[in-house]
Amino acid sequence: MTPAPLSRFCIHTITTNPLALAVSCEAYRFAGAAGITVWREALEPQGVKESAKLLAGSGLKVISLCRGGFFPAATEADRQKALDDNRRAIDEAAAIGAPLVVLVCGAVPGIPLNDARNQIADGIAAVIPHAAGAGVKLGIEPLHPMYADNRSAVSTLGQANDLVEKLRSPQVGVAIDVYHVWWDDHLEREIDRSGRLNAIFSYHVCDWRTPTRDLLLDRGIMGEGCIPLRQIRSWVERAGFSGMIEVEIFSTELWKLDQVELVKRVKSAYEKFA
Amino acid sequence: MTPAPLSRFCIHTITTNPLALAVSCEAYRFAGAAGITVWREALEPQGVKESAKLLAGSGLKVISLCRGGFFPAATEADRQKALDDNRRAIDEAAAIGAPLVVLVCGAVPGIPLNDARNQIADGIAAVIPHAAGAGVKLGIEPLHPMYADNRSAVSTLGQANDLVEKLRSPQVGVAIDVYHVWWDDHLEREIDRSGRLNAIFSYHVCDWRTPTRDLLLDRGIMGEGCIPLRQIRSWVERAGFSGMIEVEIFSTELWKLDQVELVKRVKSAYEKFA
Repeated sequence: MTPAPLSRFCIHTITTNPLALAVSCEAYRFAGAAGITVWREALEPQGVKESAKLLAGSGLKVISLCRGGFFPAATEADRQKALDDNRRAIDEAAAIGAPLVVLVCGAVPGIPLNDARNQIADGIAAVIPHAAGAGVKLGIEPLHPMYADNRSAVSTLGQANDLVEKLRSPQVGVAIDVYHVWWDDHLEREIDRSGRLNAIFSYHVCDWRTPTRDLLLDRGIMGEGCIPLRQIRSWVERAGFSGMIEVEIFSTELWKLDQVELVKRVKSAYEKFA
Repeated sequence: MTPAPLSRFCIHTITTNPLALAVSCEAYRFAGAAGITVWREALEPQGVKESAKLLAGSGLKVISLCRGGFFPAATEADRQKALDDNRRAIDEAAAIGAPLVVLVCGAVPGIPLNDARNQIADGIAAVIPHAAGAGVKLGIEPLHPMYADNRSAVSTLGQANDLVEKLRSPQVGVAIDVYHVWWDDHLEREIDRSGRLNAIFSYHVCDWRTPTRDLLLDRGIMGEGCIPLRQIRSWVERAGFSGMIEVEIFSTELWKLDQVELVKRVKSAYEKFA
């Protein structure tokens, strides 16, 4: 399989979490990246307006905003709050020129997973009109089953595809992150299905370390782990996806390093393994 | 749903890992348990023969031996070693009167999951005659997808059922542990399928803590987490299973406590939540 070209190289700001947005932009551009996915935390220090200006002058294409979602909640009031927050995320995405908001759909310990999934479907349905009005799409990201307690009741690409089929809106698709789905023996056929639904909105890469020392903050750089990255990319591309290959790594260990050096390592790993 | 009777109460020795086997037996019996599942580590200090005597006099029924498995390996020689070890596990089970060896099937970073699953099928097939000869059954335990890198390429009950169907031996069934499978939206129907295959050989309970602070050693006592225990038990029983409800908890935190007090807490949680 051919290496991924730098024209598809995108980095998530969370990857260089200690850096200010302006510095991340420079580092990514310097490394030859073509795109950036912005986490909302990275917008906060300078605000959305200033961030938008900064991004417009960065030479990077804004690929998506991370993240909306977290729809399930125990009370109607809290579910409404979640909808408001998702509408704000959509507005922020529109303001910075991001065509997509990635959704981490949410889960609450004690709310049965089926109920949570229904609340997720209702929540996305409720914000579709706002997203359509803003010209922003919504990408349902299935999260690894180890996050089914409090981060996402959507644990497989199959479930994400079910939601896409149920919601039947050109606004709604999936965000496929190898970290969350690599273990799934239904992955190839569900990627095909996402493709038939024209629903592959984004594709995220990193790697799974052995041992993984933390459930959340111990992702590896591509090539450091056991995820069959090239195989999964081949499935995604066969399903019609030719968009950005987004590097999204959170790692307390990597955040301790010189972040500009880290971006260089990420670039080299992107070229060798993504 | 009616509470589980003490006549179905079984504890895994790993739950009270700091205790010697003899002490665990006493503590379990004192708490009213009817069964014990023995981890091989618990046999080591006094050897299999002495352990067998000890267990025979304990008043507890020996439910299973944990664990065999770990079939995939990079070389033929290492796969043969794994077969030998599984035959030893079967012999140990027979020696202590355990009718079942639980299989943690194995995975190796770098061996593609599909290949690993084929090696698992071949490995189990290779030890079936030995198991049949010893009158010991083999329970394939699907492990949570967070262990797909180095513990089990069998991540779902669906995959375990596939193996059972493929191997078509009365010797081979599944071990269902709620910790590994609770998140799966196909769980109910796969439990039904296991039942139709007459393949539910054992049922393990504990709970999923939020937050889970360690991938391996932070299991909760029943009632401390978000697993719908009664619902899953109702599915298992509807599928025809009326065997032991085995408490299997590994937790560095709980191992620091007075283990006899821990067994009391486990008993109370069993009665309230299992």
